[in-house]
Amino acid sequence: MKEKTKPNRILVINPIVSDRFEEFDRNFFNRNAYPLFEVKVANLTYGPASIESYYDDSLAAPFVVQKILDAEKKGFNASIINCFMDPGLDAAREAVSIPVVGAGESAICLALMVGDKFSIIDPGPAKYVSRNPTKQVRGIGVESRFASSRGVGIPVLEIDRDLDATTRRISDEALKAVKEDGADTVVLGCTGFAGLAPKVQAIIETPVIDPALAALKTAETLCQLNVHQSKIAYPKPPEKLRKIQFLQ
Amino acid sequence: MKEKTKPNRILVINPIVSDRFEEFDRNFFNRNAYPLFEVKVANLTYGPASIESYYDDSLAAPFVVQKILDAEKKGFNASIINCFMDPGLDAAREAVSIPVVGAGESAICLALMVGDKFSIIDPGPAKYVSRNPTKQVRGIGVESRFASSRGVGIPVLEIDRDLDATTRRISDEALKAVKEDGADTVVLGCTGFAGLAPKVQAIIETPVIDPALAALKTAETLCQLNVHQSKIAYPKPPEKLRKIQFLQ
Amino acid sequence: MKEKTKPNRILVINPIVSDRFEEFDRNFFNRNAYPLFEVKVANLTYGPASIESYYDDSLAAPFVVQKILDAEKKGFNASIINCFMDPGLDAAREAVSIPVVGAGESAICLALMVGDKFSIIDPGPAKYVSRNPTKQVRGIGVESRFASSRGVGIPVLEIDRDLDATTRRISDEALKAVKEDGADTVVLGCTGFAGLAPKVQAIIETPVIDPALAALKTAETLCQLNVHQSKIAYPKPPEKLRKIQFLQ
Amino acid sequence: MKEKTKPNRILVINPIVSDRFEEFDRNFFNRNAYPLFEVKVANLTYGPASIESYYDDSLAAPFVVQKILDAEKKGFNASIINCFMDPGLDAAREAVSIPVVGAGESAICLALMVGDKFSIIDPGPAKYVSRNPTKQVRGIGVESRFASSRGVGIPVLEIDRDLDATTRRISDEALKAVKEDGADTVVLGCTGFAGLAPKVQAIIETPVIDPALAALKTAETLCQLNVHQSKIAYPKPPEKLRKIQFLQ
Amino acid sequence: MKEKTKPNRILVINPIVSDRFEEFDRNFFNRNAYPLFEVKVANLTYGPASIESYYDDSLAAPFVVQKILDAEKKGFNASIINCFMDPGLDAAREAVSIPVVGAGESAICLALMVGDKFSIIDPGPAKYVSRNPTKQVRGIGVESRFASSRGVGIPVLEIDRDLDATTRRISDEALKAVKEDGADTVVLGCTGFAGLAPKVQAIIETPVIDPALAALKTAETLCQLNVHQSKIAYPKPPEKLRKIQFLQ
Amino acid sequence: MKEKTKPNRILVINPIVSDRFEEFDRNFFNRNAYPLFEVKVANLTYGPASIESYYDDSLAAPFVVQKILDAEKKGFNASIINCFMDPGLDAAREAVSIPVVGAGESAICLALMVGDKFSIIDPGPAKYVSRNPTKQVRGIGVESRFASSRGVGIPVLEIDRDLDATTRRISDEALKAVKEDGADTVVLGCTGFAGLAPKVQAIIETPVIDPALAALKTAETLCQLNVHQSKIAYPKPPEKLRKIQFLQ
Repeated sequence: MKEKTKPNRILVINPIVSDRFEEFDRNFFNRNAYPLFEVKVANLTYGPASIESYYDDSLAAPFVVQKILDAEKKGFNASIINCFMDPGLDAAREAVSIPVVGAGESAICLALMVGDKFSIIDPGPAKYVSRNPTKQVRGIGVESRFASSRGVGIPVLEIDRDLDATTRRISDEALKAVKEDGADTVVLGCTGFAGLAPKVQAIIETPVIDPALAALKTAETLCQLNVHQSKIAYPKPPEKLRKIQFLQ
Repeated sequence: MKEKTKPNRILVINPIVSDRFEEFDRNFFNRNAYPLFEVKVANLTYGPASIESYYDDSLAAPFVVQKILDAEKKGFNASIINCFMDPGLDAAREAVSIPVVGAGESAICLALMVGDKFSIIDPGPAKYVSRNPTKQVRGIGVESRFASSRGVGIPVLEIDRDLDATTRRISDEALKAVKEDGADTVVLGCTGFAGLAPKVQAIIETPVIDPALAALKTAETLCQLNVHQSKIAYPKPPEKLRKIQFLQ
Repeated sequence: MKEKTKPNRILVINPIVSDRFEEFDRNFFNRNAYPLFEVKVANLTYGPASIESYYDDSLAAPFVVQKILDAEKKGFNASIINCFMDPGLDAAREAVSIPVVGAGESAICLALMVGDKFSIIDPGPAKYVSRNPTKQVRGIGVESRFASSRGVGIPVLEIDRDLDATTRRISDEALKAVKEDGADTVVLGCTGFAGLAPKVQAIIETPVIDPALAALKTAETLCQLNVHQSKIAYPKPPEKLRKIQFLQ
Repeated sequence: MKEKTKPNRILVINPIVSDRFEEFDRNFFNRNAYPLFEVKVANLTYGPASIESYYDDSLAAPFVVQKILDAEKKGFNASIINCFMDPGLDAAREAVSIPVVGAGESAICLALMVGDKFSIIDPGPAKYVSRNPTKQVRGIGVESRFASSRGVGIPVLEIDRDLDATTRRISDEALKAVKEDGADTVVLGCTGFAGLAPKVQAIIETPVIDPALAALKTAETLCQLNVHQSKIAYPKPPEKLRKIQFLQ
Repeated sequence: MKEKTKPNRILVINPIVSDRFEEFDRNFFNRNAYPLFEVKVANLTYGPASIESYYDDSLAAPFVVQKILDAEKKGFNASIINCFMDPGLDAAREAVSIPVVGAGESAICLALMVGDKFSIIDPGPAKYVSRNPTKQVRGIGVESRFASSRGVGIPVLEIDRDLDATTRRISDEALKAVKEDGADTVVLGCTGFAGLAPKVQAIIETPVIDPALAALKTAETLCQLNVHQSKIAYPKPPEKLRKIQFLQ
Repeated sequence: MKEKTKPNRILVINPIVSDRFEEFDRNFFNRNAYPLFEVKVANLTYGPASIESYYDDSLAAPFVVQKILDAEKKGFNASIINCFMDPGLDAAREAVSIPVVGAGESAICLALMVGDKFSIIDPGPAKYVSRNPTKQVRGIGVESRFASSRGVGIPVLEIDRDLDATTRRISDEALKAVKEDGADTVVLGCTGFAGLAPKVQAIIETPVIDPALAALKTAETLCQLNVHQSKIAYPKPPEKLRKIQFLQ
């Protein structure tokens, strides 16, 4: 590593049609990247304003994949889908050979090594609590490590209206996850919460995982170790007609 | 039921940009529909020529959802996503209130009531065998009922080039699933196999489930019982900017 | 389907020694059957007055199986065991070749396609709540989709004493299942609740599944698709001495 | 224990209509019982000649429960259902307060403490192999410890025709379970194999568990520790009409 | 059994550096042992004063294994690790051929046959409640049978300061486990609770399992049945340098 | 990150009484560490020569924990237990506040993001194959992602006798894991294989994960994100007598 001189370039895709998080994220990711990594942040030209549903996820996915195909052509070494729902993750892993990392999956897999039971605190409806593993958790196959999901009731696009209030809401639900649901580790369930983990962690005195940073560190690891997604699990889709007009 | 006079209308979406299966499917579904149901078949204007990967799935999903939103507006009573990968299933369930049914999910849930362990025979690469539950199976949460996945090595668009050969290949792999993998029930893993189940069943003397028909029967059931997808599980996505150009 | 002229005949077995539900059920099932199906309802000559325990289940099972053997001989096309506990289900599936459907299993498998987490509301003791999967749920293998079981505290034979009160009790517990246990879908855990699902659904605004109708629709589906239980999973029991006096 | 003088009496129920195993079993159980236990063996008056299917299981269950109700009245301290399928186990646990033990469940739970992965070798069809957990294993909830089921192809009533041949067949399949299925522990899947475990164990040099003895030891343990089945899990069935003619 | 005259000798290891429980345990185990078993109790010379953490567990484990190696040389027929955390269990099973039994594992496996869902009440911090399976429960693979863990907040070395108060605290948490967590069976999660099970059981009217006695009965069973741990699962560690100074 | 100037210091513990891997590992880890990390490697004074069994694991664990306690006092920022069996991992996480990382756990959690099903290739006995999840895999809770374990039959201390032969043996078994067991991702099951992953990956054309590097990257991540193990999951063990003579 230390001998390498040419930096790895990582493309972070904010899967939304807005550049409002672009500058923040460019600074955030580059400030947290290791010296030999450069992070560029891209938004979508088409897609949803934010991702808060399977519906938004499905609208964003094809454009995310297109961006990642493009990133591979432009020589990026890895790509991060910067949303907890991981829109287009499996599709992009098929489409390209460079590592593709999802923020949700990365955060959950990191949580497995920090405690025994994790809860996910996300922007979803206030008072939302579920002690049953979500489809994402079932898909990863870690049902027995899941404590609960809880929503703070702040739409994604309002997270940064009052960051102190958002931090308090997250902390409140995280404390309930610990006290009522048996969680010992907290996963922030939205990359819109980027940067809040240390503050929440200071309040609740329990580890809090930032999904954007979990993804960044995973991407760096896969780059450095030269481990890309398995082409047995994610084979290159064969050529055929795909009639889609990508206006980017 | 028997008193009803106005038929239920179901929209079957072939999530591909081709009308080559349209006539066959219109006949197939209507021939198998109960008297009080009318089935219309639609293709996509944009999307992939066939769905054989997560990549294709992600490209089809937003257009599938758009078709289903449209179907609801036009007064359809239910909608079927006619592909084993269930592209856009969760997204569409959020977007509309009419029942949305996936062929893969329907076939797997029906298989649970027919035997103890099912194998999925799909068009995937020849010699492909996996005894580990797929992400779809893990997502449904029925890992302990899954015996194996096996591929017959026939691209979707070549399934109907020689239906006898296709039937034999499916039967060969299905028999191996029974003998080597412990399956007692066979799920056809592609709606392109529509109509072949009785032939395969006759050859292997083991139940074979047609995913297109499983979906049709599930859709009829949900219509008749007036049970729609849970809006707690699949809440209506809130209004916001979704900048997508749907040319249909 | 539409070409068929000879109707399929389904035998519904109320696994109890009483004809008190017979007329109601004959009307209920036939009103909900598709045009080409005829439903006949039978009770047991010997067995329990109602099924509320494994004990009742075991007393009913051999007589249920006998009825289904008889149904096959008489040319019925399918059989429904009209009790959520599915007494004799596996045994009957071995004994005959016509499809045998259980109300509990059918309702649970349908719930998998309606939401993400289901709760079962049954007649059991009031205040009974369990968030652990029951043996039936473990047997089906869908533990990770189960939210809770809750009892309404109304003995089966008193369900119809005051149907409004029963409906309210079910609705109360169902709402608790949604609010406290994370359920998004409700399964009625007793076929004695037949006909109440729409009322409960209207009150709680969350999907409610009627196990008797779930079974009817499953039976119709298996008949129409000509998919019978797997004889690998449920082989025909070999002939041997079985010294039982069936007085029916 | 050592102070007790009045022996515990255990009733072993061979759930079949034959006394052909009675003398063997009386000797076998009493020879293996601890000094302060007396074992009596009973057969059924009505029921199947042997239990090799869910069908046989359902025919035996009500008569088994009746025998155990009777045993409780006669002052027995515990009861053993001497068949690997555990016919009537849950029902009997509800019906009485004395401990009721199943041979299959006991053997499986003991195997959990002997190795990491167990295979079940039973009389079922020759060449039968399944690496998927059976419904019994799923019901106990130990899927991840299960290696395979294998059948030796000897009907229960022919097990003792040539005990050396039976022992060899069991050993052959058990060795395959070890070599091909990853088992490290063998569970004999039939109480008709009683007495063969030491011989098989000597041949395969891997632990072999006798279900009849596993049940005996469990029954003795529950007696001595005064731990009976949970009446929360297995509540006493309420009185009501149960119209069954038990001719015993 | 009854013909044997030479008793089996079992070594119970209290994995702590104190003889304060030695006399009690010698009496307790021998009073509960079957006539043909003799129990000797040993403590550690080095190790922790009590085991209340993975840290204590790791400190005790090598000394436990050493004691068991020693026991095998001295002709003991089996060994019991008398602590719910089972320190050194897998290691000792590799090191020796005589059966090695853990108190925690034995109690959990016995609970599987007594009810449907068990809770573990241990000395841990007061108000500690977790409805997620512990690593021990996941290791055994019985997640779906686990209801909860609850702590009574009494350090192990203070359990016997006021046994009545300890009994009440255990009973209080056990009742909460039944009422709030859905448990129907209680497992005492500490061998320091030896002898309290009957008292707690009398108070809560629900089965309570003593882990020390569960282990004793399992050890006796394995001795009598001549079933030792599988050497495929627990192979003898090959000879090599192991530079450890065991001062005992 | 890039602003930090004082490097993080990580202590890698080779849990064996030998310095034979020390120089190699110091170079290996520092060459792969990010610029702002310094890695020191320590061996044990007491313990086993290599870890190939639970027995070795238990002998190493207390000394590993002692080293990590010492590392925390000396100001190290994180610690790595450099063995796939993760000896003392949970204990050390309790004992200290600095992050403690296990090579096995890290590699398995990374594999979850690279493919769908992983196999573990370890030094164990040749021809060893198991398709059942190991206790370690069950403890992490990722049973449904596990394809198989396979042994290459090379004792740990002979791995480096002929690295080409070792690489070939690993590759052979890895290819079988892919072809016969359904794996799409390979995890090297021994830190003695450090440095071989790229060679094996080049041969088998499937991702191969080096557990030592997976651990290094996890440790760096936890340092940088300031996420330490949860003190709810791993509370500080209370002070008490722990009579152990650590001669280091």
